[in-house]
Amino acid sequence: MEKKDVIGIVGAGLIGRAWACVFARAGHPVQLWDPQPTLRAAMPELLREMLKEAGNDPASADRVMPCETLEDALRGAVLVQESCPEILDIKRELFTRMDKAAAPQTILASSSSALMASEFSAGLAGARRCLVAHPVNPPHVIPVVELCPSAETDREVLSRAEAIYAGAGQVPVLLDREIPGFVLNRLQAVLLAEALRLVGEGVCSVQGLDDTIRHGLGRRWALMGPLETISLNAPAGLHDYIRRYGPTMGRLADDGAGAEAFSDRAADIVDAAFPHSGPDSVRARAAWRDRELAALDHHLRSRNVKD
Amino acid sequence: MEKKDVIGIVGAGLIGRAWACVFARAGHPVQLWDPQPTLRAAMPELLREMLKEAGNDPASADRVMPCETLEDALRGAVLVQESCPEILDIKRELFTRMDKAAAPQTILASSSSALMASEFSAGLAGARRCLVAHPVNPPHVIPVVELCPSAETDREVLSRAEAIYAGAGQVPVLLDREIPGFVLNRLQAVLLAEALRLVGEGVCSVQGLDDTIRHGLGRRWALMGPLETISLNAPAGLHDYIRRYGPTMGRLADDGAGAEAFSDRAADIVDAAFPHSGPDSVRARAAWRDRELAALDHHLRSRNVKD
Repeated sequence: MEKKDVIGIVGAGLIGRAWACVFARAGHPVQLWDPQPTLRAAMPELLREMLKEAGNDPASADRVMPCETLEDALRGAVLVQESCPEILDIKRELFTRMDKAAAPQTILASSSSALMASEFSAGLAGARRCLVAHPVNPPHVIPVVELCPSAETDREVLSRAEAIYAGAGQVPVLLDREIPGFVLNRLQAVLLAEALRLVGEGVCSVQGLDDTIRHGLGRRWALMGPLETISLNAPAGLHDYIRRYGPTMGRLADDGAGAEAFSDRAADIVDAAFPHSGPDSVRARAAWRDRELAALDHHLRSRNVKD
Repeated sequence: MEKKDVIGIVGAGLIGRAWACVFARAGHPVQLWDPQPTLRAAMPELLREMLKEAGNDPASADRVMPCETLEDALRGAVLVQESCPEILDIKRELFTRMDKAAAPQTILASSSSALMASEFSAGLAGARRCLVAHPVNPPHVIPVVELCPSAETDREVLSRAEAIYAGAGQVPVLLDREIPGFVLNRLQAVLLAEALRLVGEGVCSVQGLDDTIRHGLGRRWALMGPLETISLNAPAGLHDYIRRYGPTMGRLADDGAGAEAFSDRAADIVDAAFPHSGPDSVRARAAWRDRELAALDHHLRSRNVKD
């Protein structure tokens, strides 16, 4: 295997560990730091287990070196992936420390899902090498990563980051500019609001709602995404699609639910539908989810569905 | 194999043929009628090919008997699946004829995606046995079917229809009442509007938008649906989820795009992104899609992901 660049991992919670697996199994030497010494010490075993569960070679975990200090984890790294709690003060302090310690060319990327790069990198000397690289949890079995620049982020930094994530087997999506929710959570939010409204108003059950996506649209979307999906319903092109279906779909979109759908009433109904409420059963079901996501990833890659 | 009830198929376009495959491969004798004699004549071969492409036994096509008249196709059928063009006058006329010809217990179901049961069954003597059974195209590789009653539809008819579709390997979703777009297209419409707005405003490329779902949320949703997805992000239950994420997701939902997103500008951008514009290449890509949907269906069933 060719010699790969060093990657730094800052924060070794579930997301940070999944990122360590992504880069290690792709052949990168990984330097990992977390403020908790016990978590650092548990590291080779936790990663081995995570890789095994996902159907990957557990030996890749040997490429991950736990570091005693943040500065050690950054040394010589081409990219640092930060996955600390989603609290602005913590992220700002970490980015200030990372920006001081890291070599000028090192890319500093945050797994943030809600905070935007401008919020934690504004005013830093190296704001141009900071960005959000937002994964879907957990990134070692779901490949997409949204690359979201601030107004200060260099385009060249974005391009290098894109190549690094793609080289490690992920699917980077470049955003042109900062926007709340990025792309993924904007799409999720509008669908969720309508979903919660429909079950809240008793139009269908929670299981029925999930089945509609799981055994319906979700399968198309897992193969093609929503825009190619409609392009195949439009042999004469999208103008024809919009002429035929635009008025109807537009009315449904105008009628879509908003913030009011995230209601206590909807929460009661959803909670009542799932047998796995409570931390232990959620953990068990999440483990099932990650195994199935890994199996689905292997299936899709084996079909070469990308092309 | 136990003796199965007869199913009538009215309309032998792509959707009607896929329904014939669904019921025939599940062991039902199928009586099929289409107004075009040449289409009826092409029938055993077309179905054999369709089944083969989907990885099913082509011999099931032998259970499908093309009929010379609508009335012949209805004789002795426990359920009739109508899949004619989405034009109100045509559907109303067909349902009037079917209601006259079919035995009182025969369920009359329409594949309609936009017209509602009340629109084509109001005033019929047998309005109580009419409903919409809306599939995702093509139903032989995507199992969901939305069962949408009018105010006149009997609950007992809905229950019998549910059992018939489930018995044939589909996943029926019961709607409590008539609502424009049913469930599936309401969810699709709000997501599509936001997707078209994001690419229309240049936030990301068409490919990036599709990748965000295809290599991200679409995979979760193909395994679990959107509500179980968020329930696993909420170890303390949905009230906790809404407390933590509700305000942010609510703002994004309030900011979601409406009818204006189905614009000529968005159509230009989407069309430019796909190499498969034009009927021939759309057909080729749709064939690829259906093969991959069939492979995905086999994968998911083999994992027993339903449970």
